[in-house]
Amino acid sequence: MAGVSWEASVTDSINTIYLLFSAYLVFVMQLGFAMLCAGSVRAKNTMNIMLTNVVDAVVGSISYFLFGFAFAYGVGTDSNPFIGSHFFALRDIPNDTYDYSFFLYQWAFAIAVAGITSGSIAERTQFSAYLVFSFFLTGFVYPIVVHWVWSSTGWLSPNSSELLFGSGAIDFAGSGVVHLVGGIAGLWGAVIEGPRVGRFDVFGKPVSMRGHNATLVVLGTFLLWFGWFGFNPGSFNKILVPYPNTTNQGNWTAVGRTAVTTTLAGSTAGIVTLFGRRLLVGHWDALDVCNGVLGGFVAITSGCSVVEPWAAILCGFFAAWVLIGLNIGALKLKYDDPLEAAQLHGGCGAWGLIFTGLFAKEEFVIQAYESGLGRSGESRPFGVLMGGGWGLFGAQVVEILVIVGWVTATMGPLFYALHKLGILRISIDEENAGLDISSHGGYAYVAHHEENHPRFYADYVRMQDGS
Amino acid sequence: MAGVSWEASVTDSINTIYLLFSAYLVFVMQLGFAMLCAGSVRAKNTMNIMLTNVVDAVVGSISYFLFGFAFAYGVGTDSNPFIGSHFFALRDIPNDTYDYSFFLYQWAFAIAVAGITSGSIAERTQFSAYLVFSFFLTGFVYPIVVHWVWSSTGWLSPNSSELLFGSGAIDFAGSGVVHLVGGIAGLWGAVIEGPRVGRFDVFGKPVSMRGHNATLVVLGTFLLWFGWFGFNPGSFNKILVPYPNTTNQGNWTAVGRTAVTTTLAGSTAGIVTLFGRRLLVGHWDALDVCNGVLGGFVAITSGCSVVEPWAAILCGFFAAWVLIGLNIGALKLKYDDPLEAAQLHGGCGAWGLIFTGLFAKEEFVIQAYESGLGRSGESRPFGVLMGGGWGLFGAQVVEILVIVGWVTATMGPLFYALHKLGILRISIDEENAGLDISSHGGYAYVAHHEENHPRFYADYVRMQDGS
Amino acid sequence: MAGVSWEASVTDSINTIYLLFSAYLVFVMQLGFAMLCAGSVRAKNTMNIMLTNVVDAVVGSISYFLFGFAFAYGVGTDSNPFIGSHFFALRDIPNDTYDYSFFLYQWAFAIAVAGITSGSIAERTQFSAYLVFSFFLTGFVYPIVVHWVWSSTGWLSPNSSELLFGSGAIDFAGSGVVHLVGGIAGLWGAVIEGPRVGRFDVFGKPVSMRGHNATLVVLGTFLLWFGWFGFNPGSFNKILVPYPNTTNQGNWTAVGRTAVTTTLAGSTAGIVTLFGRRLLVGHWDALDVCNGVLGGFVAITSGCSVVEPWAAILCGFFAAWVLIGLNIGALKLKYDDPLEAAQLHGGCGAWGLIFTGLFAKEEFVIQAYESGLGRSGESRPFGVLMGGGWGLFGAQVVEILVIVGWVTATMGPLFYALHKLGILRISIDEENAGLDISSHGGYAYVAHHEENHPRFYADYVRMQDGS
Repeated sequence: MAGVSWEASVTDSINTIYLLFSAYLVFVMQLGFAMLCAGSVRAKNTMNIMLTNVVDAVVGSISYFLFGFAFAYGVGTDSNPFIGSHFFALRDIPNDTYDYSFFLYQWAFAIAVAGITSGSIAERTQFSAYLVFSFFLTGFVYPIVVHWVWSSTGWLSPNSSELLFGSGAIDFAGSGVVHLVGGIAGLWGAVIEGPRVGRFDVFGKPVSMRGHNATLVVLGTFLLWFGWFGFNPGSFNKILVPYPNTTNQGNWTAVGRTAVTTTLAGSTAGIVTLFGRRLLVGHWDALDVCNGVLGGFVAITSGCSVVEPWAAILCGFFAAWVLIGLNIGALKLKYDDPLEAAQLHGGCGAWGLIFTGLFAKEEFVIQAYESGLGRSGESRPFGVLMGGGWGLFGAQVVEILVIVGWVTATMGPLFYALHKLGILRISIDEENAGLDISSHGGYAYVAHHEENHPRFYADYVRMQDGS
Repeated sequence: MAGVSWEASVTDSINTIYLLFSAYLVFVMQLGFAMLCAGSVRAKNTMNIMLTNVVDAVVGSISYFLFGFAFAYGVGTDSNPFIGSHFFALRDIPNDTYDYSFFLYQWAFAIAVAGITSGSIAERTQFSAYLVFSFFLTGFVYPIVVHWVWSSTGWLSPNSSELLFGSGAIDFAGSGVVHLVGGIAGLWGAVIEGPRVGRFDVFGKPVSMRGHNATLVVLGTFLLWFGWFGFNPGSFNKILVPYPNTTNQGNWTAVGRTAVTTTLAGSTAGIVTLFGRRLLVGHWDALDVCNGVLGGFVAITSGCSVVEPWAAILCGFFAAWVLIGLNIGALKLKYDDPLEAAQLHGGCGAWGLIFTGLFAKEEFVIQAYESGLGRSGESRPFGVLMGGGWGLFGAQVVEILVIVGWVTATMGPLFYALHKLGILRISIDEENAGLDISSHGGYAYVAHHEENHPRFYADYVRMQDGS
Repeated sequence: MAGVSWEASVTDSINTIYLLFSAYLVFVMQLGFAMLCAGSVRAKNTMNIMLTNVVDAVVGSISYFLFGFAFAYGVGTDSNPFIGSHFFALRDIPNDTYDYSFFLYQWAFAIAVAGITSGSIAERTQFSAYLVFSFFLTGFVYPIVVHWVWSSTGWLSPNSSELLFGSGAIDFAGSGVVHLVGGIAGLWGAVIEGPRVGRFDVFGKPVSMRGHNATLVVLGTFLLWFGWFGFNPGSFNKILVPYPNTTNQGNWTAVGRTAVTTTLAGSTAGIVTLFGRRLLVGHWDALDVCNGVLGGFVAITSGCSVVEPWAAILCGFFAAWVLIGLNIGALKLKYDDPLEAAQLHGGCGAWGLIFTGLFAKEEFVIQAYESGLGRSGESRPFGVLMGGGWGLFGAQVVEILVIVGWVTATMGPLFYALHKLGILRISIDEENAGLDISSHGGYAYVAHHEENHPRFYADYVRMQDGS
């Protein structure tokens, strides 16, 4: 057993189990998104949106392996605050800090981003355009933001040696890095494509386009909830990190509290949405509750590890109103986002960053961000309302602004170019027929009497012609 | 690293991983119930029953956080055997024994109870009444029982210093505390509401009301099975507890055996139901097998940690017949329970408590209930048929009686009051139309040609009028 | 605490958590198969195929408990290379190496095998015949192969003291032991039963028989992916095993790499299938991508722990073409396998064994197969293309041949006997009506207007008669 001490074996095994199983849970979110999206679109586009979710995973695996991870975490002695440059194709990756489990965990995050965006542009996007944007977002746009905020040399990172405003931005599991990035990308996609055919009538009044299967929406929401237990508490990466100046605390106590704040924020947002929508539209709407729960999760994702449970309840409360308000605004502006992805992930993600700047607790900030570095627990800025000054709040605002700017500057031109080339949106005929029949060889569902069912686009056209 | 020893760090990290991931699995059961319930009702009530499952989770989070957990486990120096009184809103909760992970694990149990009851009263209950009963059951009725049976000061607890009959009741993961409570609550709800419209014809003959989607039933059953691996083995809470007087045993060996007994009981019950129903009704019924499997799980939940695998097979064998018999009786008595929840969770739960009183093995009882207390392994009562005397059996019977009494005394009047106030059951018109269209803004499913689909109750009424 | 050292407690707890939660993930694969199969058949046979999946689990639990595990791993002082003979009904099982968690992990593998085969013979097999073959396959045919390849005394095992060709076959998680066995069994079943009615027209041209629900296929695929994280990395069994002559490596580093190779192989195969099928059939087919991903997983399962990530990409690349090629060949030969199970699990499984013989890396082979035995890291054969000679490659070829031979010699006669007895295949009338209505008491789905829906086979016949 030369070389490996028993203590190191135990520590590494414990941390690996924790990180690896958390990664598996985050992966389940990909399934959650697939089911949520599938249930929220019309039956004729189900196959298409599920394929995009599968493709996000398989294409993302290869692009994140080849260069995405390198851009994000490829830190060496020559590193800079803007982009990583090592470990392309996992070459020369060491086996203790940057090990394969960490890659897998980060991979599961990376493939989630494009899934968020896919909701905004659902039901009207050409599949080949989807391939291009998914590859670009997962492989380049997102990893750069990760490098800024999460890597040890990022200019916005709370873990680097040079802290912005003496603080760095606290975006623990990625309200900004993951959700705001995905939401803003979706916003530009949806704005450039325009609303679905028939979404607004000739007077500009919105016409409801219900998803075809509410069961899938609930299935997807619960799976996302399940996965979020990997997303948020899992972002500690290591569970076996004791806290100085405590009798019996460490990351092992903080992970449980993080799971609790996550649950409370999502639950509160769900309840507020339930009653809020009851007052606004007059019935108890299960689908809105699902979106409310998700909005609460998105918002708490930034501060989950550094706030008290009571603060998490406030976080969820306001997240619900942010979502409700943005949805009302979207209808007024004739913005059509089939999954409300820009409102939910973008709006609640931005609120989450602000919230952390207001409510982060000094003790938890020091524990989460100093212990791992082996620093001696010196003080640093924390939430404004907790008496922690404006350093952290300022960094949070900067993170929002640079993410909005960066994603706009990269994804905006990409979507616009695809639009100008005429390969972004499908034709009106195809949109009426549905993507499944025009691009994917048939509908997702086959009724009992399948003989009379059009299987190919040509059949569909023939039937429309009455032949 | 002042203060935290390496040994304590390792122990706490290992136990936290075990408990936290078990909690995540138990949470999956909420999704399992949602899918099982959704598939077992008619399509027109799908949205309603899924919303109740989501609401159980989100409302339960807040009520269990604010006071449910305090009633159950809020034990201090001034504690009594009947109700807890500390840790409201997790205030002053310590960070070693009663940590946040334990709260999360218990929360996942609490939200499951109302989900059981929701099955009994499905397809005919007003949503506002559901909110009231769910809040009361999860926040008060259930936590009191938990305090009695599982807390360190409960009068029925096998962990307290004063053991009832020198034994206390052994309800390891809650055949009684969870399933019998939920089942009896459902029984009273279903009795007071009466059967669904059309469930029995004018001659009193039952009319089959098949659920709308068997795939969802199977999906829910497998998810519940998956979650039960967190429910039963997870109830050890700590995995790193060695057993005295052994060479290499501890909770780490017992958890595996508990997973095996759980699997064998459920599987046996499933097989018995498969062949039993084949003999009784003449075909191989997948849905009955699913319910049989669940009945076996419910029954073994009490004794899973203290019986041999061969005994688990007996447990499942009889659980199947309990379920089959109660279902026949329910039809005779014109009792209508859409999910068979009272029969399954109530009947098999009660059988599980009896079973444990008969088959609990001395060695396992001492290991499971003495090691954690640091007691020196003195003898205590165990299963009657294993030569352990009547102490344990008596305590098991007492647990059944007090649970039936307590739930009847609390939930009975509540359902009756809601009934008398006319806010418990929906109108016959609404029942015929379905809850989704009358209360939730539309059906769960939208067919291809959604234009002709009634989206609101007003539309539905208009269509019935032929206008 | 007499007897159990703290070090042993910690080691056993860590390894148990790892193995037990991996077992839970492998169990999820059973749900994944159920959903994949359900979605891939026609609606009228959904109930039947889901029941077969549930039955595989519950019958498999009992048969594997009673004797399957004993045949596979029942090794004692009197052991032989061909069949195990201890631990029937887990009797006298020790509590350290062969503990209950290991049994549970192996059980989850065993029940998966029959699930593979069920896909090949779907939509036309009598349920009673299914019971016979499932019992025989899970309880006898499969465990024997396990004994040969994975037990410590198996003649093909890389862990035994007598290594075939100085190497033994490396089938880490079972490309051969699980997938090839299930696939060959399915091949014989499908060949002996013949194609479904209407699968090939009078000119021998294939008629498409689309599955009824693509959403279930995607759900099943993602669940299988999730479960595969338990299947492949979990097959290390113990995570706390340090590697000699390294500074900080052990199974805890290898498990992460194994999860990565698994992901890359599946993803690559998915991408190749996506573009390959686009070129061949002209549309982007989501279902083919799902099967491609699964084919990649099946192929990498043998070598996942002993190859570099770049090799995993090659593995997936060729797995996709193996699958595409075999599917084309199957159509030409009028071979009808509703789930492509023989092509996917059989074909890609065989390719996976070959692949490992070509690309296994010396360092990883020694770490994975010597460290656990406490051997001093002596050299042994590895991949041909890595300069490791022909010993391993030869053993891999032998494994393919003996599995094909053994499964053919056992399952072939069984299916043939059932066929000759007239109890294998359902009648043409039943096949047209669907298994659900003829054998299982009704369809899986009930539409809104359930009154006019035939519930029993008698009703169906009456309706066909026009009465």
